[in-house]
Amino acid sequence: MTVKIGLLGFGTVASGVPYLLQENQKKIFDLAEAEIAIGKVLVKSSEEAQHLVAQGHDYDFVTDVEAILSDESIAIVVELMGRIEPAKTYIAKALQAGKHVVSANKDLIALHGTELLALASENQVSFAYEAAVAGGIPILRTLSQSLISDKITRVLGVLNGTSNYMLTKMVESGWTYQEALESAQALGYAESDPTNDVEGIDAAYKVAILSRFAFGMAIDFEAIHHQGIDVITANDVATAKEMGYVIKLVGDLQETASGLWAEVAPTLIPTNHPLATVNDVMNAVYVESIGIGQSMYYGPGAGQKPTATSVVADIMQISRDIVQDKVGQPFNRFDQPSRLADLEHVSHRYYLSVQARDTTGQLSHLAQLFEKHAISFDQVLQEKASQEDAFITVITHEITRQQLQEVTKDIEASVDFELGNVFKVLGD
Amino acid sequence: MTVKIGLLGFGTVASGVPYLLQENQKKIFDLAEAEIAIGKVLVKSSEEAQHLVAQGHDYDFVTDVEAILSDESIAIVVELMGRIEPAKTYIAKALQAGKHVVSANKDLIALHGTELLALASENQVSFAYEAAVAGGIPILRTLSQSLISDKITRVLGVLNGTSNYMLTKMVESGWTYQEALESAQALGYAESDPTNDVEGIDAAYKVAILSRFAFGMAIDFEAIHHQGIDVITANDVATAKEMGYVIKLVGDLQETASGLWAEVAPTLIPTNHPLATVNDVMNAVYVESIGIGQSMYYGPGAGQKPTATSVVADIMQISRDIVQDKVGQPFNRFDQPSRLADLEHVSHRYYLSVQARDTTGQLSHLAQLFEKHAISFDQVLQEKASQEDAFITVITHEITRQQLQEVTKDIEASVDFELGNVFKVLGD
Repeated sequence: MTVKIGLLGFGTVASGVPYLLQENQKKIFDLAEAEIAIGKVLVKSSEEAQHLVAQGHDYDFVTDVEAILSDESIAIVVELMGRIEPAKTYIAKALQAGKHVVSANKDLIALHGTELLALASENQVSFAYEAAVAGGIPILRTLSQSLISDKITRVLGVLNGTSNYMLTKMVESGWTYQEALESAQALGYAESDPTNDVEGIDAAYKVAILSRFAFGMAIDFEAIHHQGIDVITANDVATAKEMGYVIKLVGDLQETASGLWAEVAPTLIPTNHPLATVNDVMNAVYVESIGIGQSMYYGPGAGQKPTATSVVADIMQISRDIVQDKVGQPFNRFDQPSRLADLEHVSHRYYLSVQARDTTGQLSHLAQLFEKHAISFDQVLQEKASQEDAFITVITHEITRQQLQEVTKDIEASVDFELGNVFKVLGD
Repeated sequence: MTVKIGLLGFGTVASGVPYLLQENQKKIFDLAEAEIAIGKVLVKSSEEAQHLVAQGHDYDFVTDVEAILSDESIAIVVELMGRIEPAKTYIAKALQAGKHVVSANKDLIALHGTELLALASENQVSFAYEAAVAGGIPILRTLSQSLISDKITRVLGVLNGTSNYMLTKMVESGWTYQEALESAQALGYAESDPTNDVEGIDAAYKVAILSRFAFGMAIDFEAIHHQGIDVITANDVATAKEMGYVIKLVGDLQETASGLWAEVAPTLIPTNHPLATVNDVMNAVYVESIGIGQSMYYGPGAGQKPTATSVVADIMQISRDIVQDKVGQPFNRFDQPSRLADLEHVSHRYYLSVQARDTTGQLSHLAQLFEKHAISFDQVLQEKASQEDAFITVITHEITRQQLQEVTKDIEASVDFELGNVFKVLGD
């Protein structure tokens, strides 16, 4: 039997699909229980098609999506265009035409997943998107198949390769944010407008998708707090190191008494934590649960071959379902009402960097501000910032977001202090 | 609908099953698409049953396995007795009676898996055993479901928690092997006879099972070379550290030009390798493949709750198949002829510890022995061993097993040198 796929887009990731179908032919044929063949490929223009043919890509290139949607021999549509439109319209039409869909489009699934998944269910077709979170790490299927019996209480993820590369350089080589950004751009890791990567927006999309698989909750993208890495100073990096931590951009989903807390923020990670050694463009998802306890899934977060591997795995699972006549299996079945955490139930340890005049009494004055809100210190470090000024860095014991908001307000209101960065701290 | 299970054995892991069924009731019910109920529990004697009832375990305890095998209301038999017999006979009978089987028994599956899997296939029932390798890490289902599209070229695993705990103490705290063993025994990690753990036998069972999932090859347990950790000296640990490595017991499956190389041996791991930070009783499986590239799966290798989580995941998958009327799905479909590597195709870097008289000319004499077999050095370290003797430690560039055998033979034959440990070295 042959299962034909239609590719929407033939960029970097898409061209990794024929690579795998060729290089791993026998295993893929045996385990998909069918031959996977590329039926048609949608490109933007006939010029692009001619260019690809000239490069040796021997496919049936089309420029109108209808040519794929109306082709009854094509069972699976593989969307690798990215962005929202026209990908969203094309996927919706494909699902309505009774075609199964595989996508790697995190933005689209984070923002419009609920709608598209409902459409897949209505039309009794499959919609899989393993590659949408952490590219080559098979985290979504692992959560939905293997951690099916476990109750997850927290998910922490290094989910953006670009910002992780930059932070690795800032931590290990002492580069500034600007130097790290320029290097990431030169290497092709960061786009000319790096906003989505460095502001935590890309990671927040992935957090939104992870929330459905780990907690069964489809939370709004807007409910995910996000803070970028562009605020991190060389002093933050050095001070964190001195106190036994590395700074990484971490996506965090945490169960609290009132509901789920979701955020993406620069976070201090103890150097002996498994996430601390996830460096360069690598990604990892660390899971806390009542059964397994602690587990971590590590791999490349992006890249042609890793992403194509996840895409082809999705295609193969659907192919097998087609052959076995049991199509329409939901990619994720875990579904429960979304509840977001009240701020009073969200507690963490925090790092606060405070600049003060280097005169006697300043530390005890600062300590009093914390005491007023019943906040105790885990670590305090005072260092010279300049001739007249000192940096006082505090790591608190666990406090609520409310306590944090109150104390930062007091510090900001005081003429003696200038509040620098405030970051969450993992560990206890 | 209710799916009834029969438990064979009610030891530590088995009693974790009702914990999860209770604590994660709603998710398990929703995703198994049925209520999982414990029908009967096999124990050794009526005294044991009375004792368990007195402890508050309110199950239908039986002492004859026939009571479970002949109970038509029981769909899944869960074997958690361990060892080979009577577990093997009970599982075979259960499969023949048309019951699905879940097991965590690595020894049994490594040694007799082929036979039992054939029996499951004949009787069109499911036989799943996620917990048999690396307890809480869902590595088997990940290999068979998610890495389905990828071609794996190497699997490296820290697969034995007991020996990893001991080596962590030897590396981080400078304990001797004996001190580490006594501590592991006091903490209940090691049995009074620790042979299976410290000799690499337990890890070799897991390597045998991983081979089927990662390479589709059912290799004989006897074909897996294994070397234990009891030979490792304080000098090895310290020298490795000085050269930038930690020593761990690593299970290794590697594709070569002629076939698969499989071994379990103390191995030097560069400190920046993801496996280097897998410490204490934690396990990890590191995978190299043509698609994803590098990925790692990390978690607890044993323990009541982690193991029970994998067991309940297996039960739930089978339960769902029962509800959806598609039972008998093989746990692993990847199957190809086994081919073992010829020694000439197996090449690694090696660490060799050599003791020599501390006189001039010894190093060049040793270097000549290596040159004779066309072996070049990556690192060399000479240190005083005693008043008269020196340790010369060599890390070679990549050489074949054949070259290694020849040079070690020459060193052993020389009156000038005493050959200490020889370990494989990861990295390049």
